[in-house]
Amino acid sequence: MSKLKGACIFGQSGGPTSVINASAAGVIQEALKQDCITAVYGAAHGIKGILEEKFYDMSKEDPYEIELLKTTPSSALGSVRYKLKNAEEDETDYKRLLEVFKKYNIRYFFYNGGNDSMDTCNKVSKYMQKVGYECRVMGIPKTIDNDLWGTDHCPGYGSAAKYIATSTMEVYHDARVYDTGMITILEVMGRNAGWLTAATSLAAYKGNGPDLIYLPELPFNLDKFLEETNRIYKENGKVIVAVSEGVKDENGKYVAEMGASLAKDAFGHAQLGGAASILASIVKEKIANKVRAIEFSLLQRCAAHLASKTDVDEAYMAGQMAVRYAVEGKTDYMVAFERSEGPEYKCNIKLINLTDVANTEKKVPREWINKEGNGLTEDFVKYALPLIQGESRPPLEDGLPRFARLKKVLATK
Amino acid sequence: MSKLKGACIFGQSGGPTSVINASAAGVIQEALKQDCITAVYGAAHGIKGILEEKFYDMSKEDPYEIELLKTTPSSALGSVRYKLKNAEEDETDYKRLLEVFKKYNIRYFFYNGGNDSMDTCNKVSKYMQKVGYECRVMGIPKTIDNDLWGTDHCPGYGSAAKYIATSTMEVYHDARVYDTGMITILEVMGRNAGWLTAATSLAAYKGNGPDLIYLPELPFNLDKFLEETNRIYKENGKVIVAVSEGVKDENGKYVAEMGASLAKDAFGHAQLGGAASILASIVKEKIANKVRAIEFSLLQRCAAHLASKTDVDEAYMAGQMAVRYAVEGKTDYMVAFERSEGPEYKCNIKLINLTDVANTEKKVPREWINKEGNGLTEDFVKYALPLIQGESRPPLEDGLPRFARLKKVLATK
Repeated sequence: MSKLKGACIFGQSGGPTSVINASAAGVIQEALKQDCITAVYGAAHGIKGILEEKFYDMSKEDPYEIELLKTTPSSALGSVRYKLKNAEEDETDYKRLLEVFKKYNIRYFFYNGGNDSMDTCNKVSKYMQKVGYECRVMGIPKTIDNDLWGTDHCPGYGSAAKYIATSTMEVYHDARVYDTGMITILEVMGRNAGWLTAATSLAAYKGNGPDLIYLPELPFNLDKFLEETNRIYKENGKVIVAVSEGVKDENGKYVAEMGASLAKDAFGHAQLGGAASILASIVKEKIANKVRAIEFSLLQRCAAHLASKTDVDEAYMAGQMAVRYAVEGKTDYMVAFERSEGPEYKCNIKLINLTDVANTEKKVPREWINKEGNGLTEDFVKYALPLIQGESRPPLEDGLPRFARLKKVLATK
Repeated sequence: MSKLKGACIFGQSGGPTSVINASAAGVIQEALKQDCITAVYGAAHGIKGILEEKFYDMSKEDPYEIELLKTTPSSALGSVRYKLKNAEEDETDYKRLLEVFKKYNIRYFFYNGGNDSMDTCNKVSKYMQKVGYECRVMGIPKTIDNDLWGTDHCPGYGSAAKYIATSTMEVYHDARVYDTGMITILEVMGRNAGWLTAATSLAAYKGNGPDLIYLPELPFNLDKFLEETNRIYKENGKVIVAVSEGVKDENGKYVAEMGASLAKDAFGHAQLGGAASILASIVKEKIANKVRAIEFSLLQRCAAHLASKTDVDEAYMAGQMAVRYAVEGKTDYMVAFERSEGPEYKCNIKLINLTDVANTEKKVPREWINKEGNGLTEDFVKYALPLIQGESRPPLEDGLPRFARLKKVLATK
């Protein structure tokens, strides 16, 4: 089989993670090795960079800096939240993409992101098929939220989970130094899926974790929460509660909405945040004076200094394998992980149709949440623990991380 | 010289740090070695544990667990915020302390804490002198705030500074992935002294830090802050601001007070928090819609996974040397650090009179703050950088920290 000859372009999309740049390193290093790939472009701010013809020639970068991407958090090429319209409604963007692809002879398109990004990837793929422009399109999963369908887990999740579990253990120690009562409410990211909040149960598994964990998978009942918190507070004076930013009541009203009206982000999702501080003020009024709300905030998705080696390696492999599969002729897929049976953790790569994965969310299964709806079962621990194994951290200079510095030389034609 | 024979008691006081337990390890391991020290007690919740005759026999602990204290955050013995009245006003507590000291033949008292704890230490020391009870009293410095007078720096500061600088660098990367405007406001601990907030300038020194840094040492002018933020926002669309929780305006009104009324903690200090979110809401109204407030919160004082080795070693040494000096006959001092002259960083131990150190605060000198009052000079970087060098982290089990587990066997008589 003669290989498809042409340039490749790679884009990062959606919220950054600690390891999305590891996938970038995988794509770039592998693509630079492939003879049939004539140029390796990195799109500035994802799909927007392609539309605006703004992308970088990755062959101009120092190989050491590309290597450093493995331990550099966030999206080094710049990310984007840009929703492509359906091609049936408005073809403008697609025509422009085709024009740019043709101009640079781009025959490989790699897109790294979460649900919305896989939707973008899918739309681009289907359009190129429709107009008969030969182009291999591969999605590479990325999301701390771990909510992509069809893959055992997503690159980005393991590192965020490791950060959350470790920090929860540390806060656990801090939050019980006084012999006075203390209620601590931790707020964890995850709009609709509770995977990240569930990671606090790893700290609980180690004996240094929350007493109560509330995921967005189940309706949040304020009275039940107050009753459970109060019971533990009365028993031992210290309570740690972990709560997802996305918890909502029986009527679908976000806890965060109780305090403030909501803005909407570009995708029409509610812009969340503040559940912990709202609950803290309610707890302060109803149960105890000493209450502290802690938001892990952006820290949980950019803490490269505490990344999971397993996660970094898998993120790299996802990028690398996307290139290899595309070169072999595969297209219209997302690279995914499949866990092998057996006592040892091992994940193999499999391919999922983009159509199947786009916009489908994977939530924490009900059977992994305890009966009371305020904690996780051992099955979850068994699932998550292998994903946080191994240490990855950037090299240090002056005791501080040395992150990649890209030259970002614009490609020209 | 014949050495004073008797038991020693050690207490932890005030807000915990990542390395206060390293000082505990230093005291305990050294005291267990000294022949003249007949028993090594660890007070539960500091001075309160002594008053209540609740302390642990440290010889009953597994030596491995004592060793693990070096990498275990927070106060393993429990901490306290308890202010001793002046002995002239009310002798009750002092008489009780004397009674307990006599009962257990306690001849060595080591107290680990910040300003308020050194005040406690000083009062106990002076009382024991007054009543003629021979007891060696040594203060061991501890505070992430770095505001103790008479010492080059305080154990706890270096690790908190390393965490803050590293996390700021990571957030810097995260906060500029989109090609849209974004203002990020970081809130750092430090009630009256800006040492911790200043540590964000180490990230700026590495090119990944805040554009503006506001310390509590200078009056905070809201209009100036808005003008400076707006100017940078207009220039490059991205602004990172670091602000101390304790910033206050020309009239001494805390920024945090603008939004909420203040509770008072046991020492009569204002209970702070919320400066960043209040500033964020003002910025949102006046400058830009995309604003994020991030509080480092408790995480900055308990992140043992990112401690400074230099800090851990010095904290250990402070505890160890307190014991050695006391055994040699010194009393009524706080162990302090003195930096050697020369290009290589080196700190020696010196002793400071407790009377001099108690309740005196050391602030960031005006000449280390830039002329505009919104950043730090290179002199600060030169001062702080050596303090964050070297890596210390707990051993891991299942990819998560293995912290010390003390048996806490109550001492009896």
